[in-house]
Amino acid sequence: MVNGTLISFEGPEGAGKSSILEAILPLLEEKGIPYITTREPGGVDIAEKIRQVILDPDHTSMDAKTELLLYIASRRQHLVERVLPALAAGKVVLMDRFIDSSVAYQGYGRGLSVEDIEWLNQFATDGLKPDLTLYFDLDVEEGLARIARNQEREVNRLDLEGLELHYKVRKGYLALAEKEPERIVKIDASQSFETVLADVLTILEKRLGTLK
Amino acid sequence: MVNGTLISFEGPEGAGKSSILEAILPLLEEKGIPYITTREPGGVDIAEKIRQVILDPDHTSMDAKTELLLYIASRRQHLVERVLPALAAGKVVLMDRFIDSSVAYQGYGRGLSVEDIEWLNQFATDGLKPDLTLYFDLDVEEGLARIARNQEREVNRLDLEGLELHYKVRKGYLALAEKEPERIVKIDASQSFETVLADVLTILEKRLGTLK
Repeated sequence: MVNGTLISFEGPEGAGKSSILEAILPLLEEKGIPYITTREPGGVDIAEKIRQVILDPDHTSMDAKTELLLYIASRRQHLVERVLPALAAGKVVLMDRFIDSSVAYQGYGRGLSVEDIEWLNQFATDGLKPDLTLYFDLDVEEGLARIARNQEREVNRLDLEGLELHYKVRKGYLALAEKEPERIVKIDASQSFETVLADVLTILEKRLGTLK
Repeated sequence: MVNGTLISFEGPEGAGKSSILEAILPLLEEKGIPYITTREPGGVDIAEKIRQVILDPDHTSMDAKTELLLYIASRRQHLVERVLPALAAGKVVLMDRFIDSSVAYQGYGRGLSVEDIEWLNQFATDGLKPDLTLYFDLDVEEGLARIARNQEREVNRLDLEGLELHYKVRKGYLALAEKEPERIVKIDASQSFETVLADVLTILEKRLGTLK
């Protein structure tokens, strides 16, 4: 049933993944490849409502496992309502963050069981994984410095949690990339935007050629 | 950390479990045993909010796995905020429905994987199971007839789903009772209220005696 191609963009804030995602759209249009871009909860009403429960500032007593279950529920609904129909229609789906973010942030970062998160991801996606994951790898200090320099983006709660969390998250991404080298391609995001974009386009040309 | 006693009440609507639960409270008070009664989401704000998402009549596109994940998230939060503190304080916690309802209704009834539901229950509860589960077993037709006769209770969506679902749910409960005979005690709920209550009191006297 799945004829399209699912590509996820992963990595820390500040690594430029969202900008690169936008920058590759002309390539797809030039080639006449139908696509959608999305990120959870992706405008899916039920998934948005679940996010509101997670993010409600009154919910200070929310347990870490409750939060994880709610993220996974939101993932499931977004997948069913938005991602799967696009894939079934043969489209390329470009996702800003997906299953690996949960493993890196909630698992490696927060200390919840990576095995449990992988089980929950598998449950929510029925085992669907991205055909390709672009992991934008960046030195932790460099990522934080970029965020600090970026006037257009507000510094959020996670940015301020200290270096330790960010080191753990990077360690998580690197472990994932090592575990699934066929799926996850590590991009050196410390390079200039133009060089990163060129790297990504090269990878996509190769992958979309074989995947389509 | 858990010094109290967790007792769950399970079975179909119409089997009288909620009435029996209320009727045994005088026994606990007479013996000076501290207790709480509860049912998910149990007035826990975050769990209530999650239920609102599940029950919103606009959410007709909700996927079955999304719904299950939301129920499990609600279970987790209710457990952490309400059940565990009561158990830690040494109380008896009387719960109207708990983990077995998910297995019986969503698993056996709706056809979701029983193994998956058991995994999710385990995740949400950190493996905590009731010390005792009273399963009120009732012939399916008799249960539905009782509901129809009960003027005080509105017939709900589940009541009307036809006999097949209710047969599957009962089969699920019976399978659970067979699988965990030490935990789950089957009560013949076709007897008179007084006889059922006497049976339950006998069981509780025995169990609370050994459990406390």
